[in-house]
Amino acid sequence: MAYQIIDGKMVSEHIKLQIAEAVKQRLASGLKKPHLAAVLVGNDGGSETYVGHKVKACAQVGFDSTLIRMDEQVSELELLSVIGDLNRNIDIDGFIVQLPLPKHIDEQKIIEAISPEKDVDGFHPVNVGKMVIGLPSFLPATPFGILELLKYYKIDTSGKHVVVLGRSNIVGTPLALLLSRKSKPGDATVTICHSRTKNLSEITLQADILIAALGNPEFVGAEMVKDGAVVIDVGTTRVPSQETKSGFRLKGDVLFEEVAPKCSYITPVPGGVGPMTIVSLLKNTLLAADISKK
Amino acid sequence: MAYQIIDGKMVSEHIKLQIAEAVKQRLASGLKKPHLAAVLVGNDGGSETYVGHKVKACAQVGFDSTLIRMDEQVSELELLSVIGDLNRNIDIDGFIVQLPLPKHIDEQKIIEAISPEKDVDGFHPVNVGKMVIGLPSFLPATPFGILELLKYYKIDTSGKHVVVLGRSNIVGTPLALLLSRKSKPGDATVTICHSRTKNLSEITLQADILIAALGNPEFVGAEMVKDGAVVIDVGTTRVPSQETKSGFRLKGDVLFEEVAPKCSYITPVPGGVGPMTIVSLLKNTLLAADISKK
Repeated sequence: MAYQIIDGKMVSEHIKLQIAEAVKQRLASGLKKPHLAAVLVGNDGGSETYVGHKVKACAQVGFDSTLIRMDEQVSELELLSVIGDLNRNIDIDGFIVQLPLPKHIDEQKIIEAISPEKDVDGFHPVNVGKMVIGLPSFLPATPFGILELLKYYKIDTSGKHVVVLGRSNIVGTPLALLLSRKSKPGDATVTICHSRTKNLSEITLQADILIAALGNPEFVGAEMVKDGAVVIDVGTTRVPSQETKSGFRLKGDVLFEEVAPKCSYITPVPGGVGPMTIVSLLKNTLLAADISKK
Repeated sequence: MAYQIIDGKMVSEHIKLQIAEAVKQRLASGLKKPHLAAVLVGNDGGSETYVGHKVKACAQVGFDSTLIRMDEQVSELELLSVIGDLNRNIDIDGFIVQLPLPKHIDEQKIIEAISPEKDVDGFHPVNVGKMVIGLPSFLPATPFGILELLKYYKIDTSGKHVVVLGRSNIVGTPLALLLSRKSKPGDATVTICHSRTKNLSEITLQADILIAALGNPEFVGAEMVKDGAVVIDVGTTRVPSQETKSGFRLKGDVLFEEVAPKCSYITPVPGGVGPMTIVSLLKNTLLAADISKK
């Protein structure tokens, strides 16, 4: 069967152009550039890379960005103090604290210290709650990015059976919520599966749209996928590789070669969902700037 | 097949005794009685009844209660001012504003004005968000009551397929979340169905536990239910009746006579989920009092 690749790289570039255009219009009407700040604690390789991408993306669309580096040994109190400063800084529209944080810091406490109006990661309980209730809020990056991909490719979700593998607070659970509610994309019948699910294949075989967000490399094989399904692969596990300069490569949750031929649409890894998450962050930051009318 | 009735009336009385005992222990340790306030706007018959039950239940377990009646014509500003008073009143541990409110009042604005620490209905976005994230919060009454019923009857949900009919913000959606997450009861594979779901019977027939929260009287017939399933009926639609003094009777979403023989457990209407909702409110109020340590 001929399948179509969902090209997240291309869609993300397309949306970045739209954002850059919106920034130009802001400047033309005398408003300032949106400004995103990122707090990076310690020197984790993955976190360095992610934050680097975010800073670069800001430059691409004409945002200001500020990177605040803090030592691995920083105390919770010092970090909270920096967050307080960012909350009060009227030039900063939104900011993120790159996770994970060192073990001696209470992540949840940090998340709740971020002003909900600047919480462009959408992790604060107020934003999570507003999302569930269906009120305007900053949507978490990965689910938001997936909704954008579904929209871009005009993949109809209404009345479709969506099966979500994984129940994390930042991907699986919010996606299940967003796709089940009365909205567009949305209005789907949604099943949430996870490590305790029995007869998993029986359920995934019912999926018109299968979303794999387990973080379990190449877990989804062809025998789990219905003919003609849309498959969205959220997995990005770093596995060692001798073929790349970095010494690793990203593997998705889906065995692409064997699953793709059964699909109508499928996201590759890398280049599928990944590039969309940064675009979500940019969209949230633009929204934060627009709301604060600066 | 022999089915067991899930007797919400009995379980609710049992839990009320536990709450009354906790109140006695509070008094013995020099703490005050928990105090619930309810704001009732206008004279809607259903609302009058519900609030009346809540006030009576407070008396039963030894709580103080305050009923604040406001005229149907009250302005949003006046209502917000009363809420502000209740937020500041240190003698009130928790309070509710009985919904629905008259059309000229913005319900969401009212809900968000309630201090999350006193929001014993669990409707404030902060409490909804905390629930989703898995943090301690006031759970909404009906889902909380259903979890208590599952616990009381030792109905195992882990790895079971739960199908929830209905995606409301106060029942279907929070129930789906609570039952899918890593907890007890919980750890279930959960499917959320609603008005846009196609081939509904195919899905409900897979349910080990079927939860009907559509508000559509007698919608679920025997042909939709798997042998041995647990059926929880959340529906309580008032239908006119000449057999009752009140002129109406409550109908559930399940055609009880025909479905019950297929079930392992089933809730009746009335006397199933209904009586548990008030118990949830009492439990939340006790929790609010315990947290504030008064």
